[in-house]
Amino acid sequence: MKSNSNLMRTSYSIGIDIGGTNTDIGLVRSDGSVVAKKNLPTREYFDANKYASDICLKIKELMTEKKIDEIDGIGIAAPMGNYYTGCIDNATNLNFKGVTNLNALFHQYMDVPVTVSNDANAAAYGELVYGGARGMKNFITFTLGTGVGSGIVVDGKLVHGKTGNAGELGHVILIPEGRPCGCGRRGCLETYASATGIRNTALELLEKHPQYQGVLSQIPKEQLTSKHVGDAAKDGDPLALEVFELTGKWLGLAMANAVAFSGPEAIFLMGGPVKAGEVLLEPLLESFKRNLCFVYDGSVDIRVSELPDNDAAILGAAALTKA
Amino acid sequence: MKSNSNLMRTSYSIGIDIGGTNTDIGLVRSDGSVVAKKNLPTREYFDANKYASDICLKIKELMTEKKIDEIDGIGIAAPMGNYYTGCIDNATNLNFKGVTNLNALFHQYMDVPVTVSNDANAAAYGELVYGGARGMKNFITFTLGTGVGSGIVVDGKLVHGKTGNAGELGHVILIPEGRPCGCGRRGCLETYASATGIRNTALELLEKHPQYQGVLSQIPKEQLTSKHVGDAAKDGDPLALEVFELTGKWLGLAMANAVAFSGPEAIFLMGGPVKAGEVLLEPLLESFKRNLCFVYDGSVDIRVSELPDNDAAILGAAALTKA
Repeated sequence: MKSNSNLMRTSYSIGIDIGGTNTDIGLVRSDGSVVAKKNLPTREYFDANKYASDICLKIKELMTEKKIDEIDGIGIAAPMGNYYTGCIDNATNLNFKGVTNLNALFHQYMDVPVTVSNDANAAAYGELVYGGARGMKNFITFTLGTGVGSGIVVDGKLVHGKTGNAGELGHVILIPEGRPCGCGRRGCLETYASATGIRNTALELLEKHPQYQGVLSQIPKEQLTSKHVGDAAKDGDPLALEVFELTGKWLGLAMANAVAFSGPEAIFLMGGPVKAGEVLLEPLLESFKRNLCFVYDGSVDIRVSELPDNDAAILGAAALTKA
Repeated sequence: MKSNSNLMRTSYSIGIDIGGTNTDIGLVRSDGSVVAKKNLPTREYFDANKYASDICLKIKELMTEKKIDEIDGIGIAAPMGNYYTGCIDNATNLNFKGVTNLNALFHQYMDVPVTVSNDANAAAYGELVYGGARGMKNFITFTLGTGVGSGIVVDGKLVHGKTGNAGELGHVILIPEGRPCGCGRRGCLETYASATGIRNTALELLEKHPQYQGVLSQIPKEQLTSKHVGDAAKDGDPLALEVFELTGKWLGLAMANAVAFSGPEAIFLMGGPVKAGEVLLEPLLESFKRNLCFVYDGSVDIRVSELPDNDAAILGAAALTKA
């Protein structure tokens, strides 16, 4: 009886994070610990069937090594992963072109539920199931990376919308006629608040302040990254601080606008640039408060993700199995 | 047996639309027809208890007159009406100050469920239960009036958020540092796309084009309304057409941004300025398509509300009883 009830409590699932370069596969215990993980070089696969087959072999290896007989399901976070169809739809950074039906491919090799979504939505589920949003009904996550991803949870469920593509707050037009975006339009949030946006803001300010002689002026322009800017800002570099002042101002405005949509109890931030810490968060909070409509005053917490950096993507993917 | 099953199918509810000047009370059949209605002068009431008591008397009169013994519930659309608490919270255009607990007041006089929300949310429910959104799971409504109200339906349910104030898209900042808004900030959508915004755009263009001699220049500035502008635009007046070009451009952008949030299957427009018709809708659709992120191409219908103008508010309120 006791061992049965223990079996009920502790369960396992698989989280798979598909990136353009690497695919990370993790065995996740129900308490949110990543028990073991393996990876595959996504870039080397051109045949989606072979790719799915090799991932399933890795899953079976993980289970054998950790003596786990049973998993609840497989969650897959993939670029352009579609929750409704279980497919990857025309992802530009993968070798598999067109529509790749992951759900069908995986079911050839494993007989467990497979849930697919994009990485930003998976991040929101990760926060809900294993992170700081446990028990919350309404929250939003912003993931700052090459782009800006977002996931929106309403009444305890992720908002997928009609086509599975809801929650693309990185492509809300923040500044009409602003910076050109990869999506073909101008002024999208991600052209300002992504790692790429931060780099571009730094390049703009370097141009604007030719008299500046600080550490960022020593780095060849083509090598400059948002991490350089973050490190310089932490050391008090005035140009880097100005970059984060602006980034925080833009992101705070975007977050205030998002609140007017779903009235969440919290917004979580994750991704590389968030590691800059106070130099980003202070201007962000100032801008958020200034731009928030008064009816929401005091009702929204701004928080940093509580998922561990190294395992956030795997945990997000595994959390999809609870969706 | 037959009559029983008819009784099951046809039911009645009460919809109450509380405005600053008038309170409309309607008896609504389950097929969406407003069987009868009465009204009270909101402005003349300073005692909320007396107000609730008089409304309940009117409800009983309606039921007696139409020989209806039973109603499913009472839905109340009120400025600052809060779905979670059943209260009106500090509405600026009512004589009842502070928090007015409508739910408790009504239950003194009638023993049926009472559901309260703001008028924009009620409009969305009206569309869902009795209008063009019947059967839809994901849609958004924009109500253009003195302000811009909105209601967002996700997975068949209205988004209320943490505090009951979700769905305030009129207060999304569309143009950073733009027009001053009644909420104390600048650039909110409603400063551009409300009836008041349309009036202000016309005043700006009259200033900009002093050579203009058309019909709008004949109307004393303080008397000019969005209806004048709409009528002039329908008659081909160039300045009025320019006003709606701009209004459509702004509203189309706001709607495209809203899509990136919830990925709806449709957006419904309602309210006075929508009666301007094609002169608004054409530039709006052009702007919407241009500003929509490509992942949503072709997935969203832009539609005009299917609720009858005269009864839309009552139907919205009555629909809250199905919430």
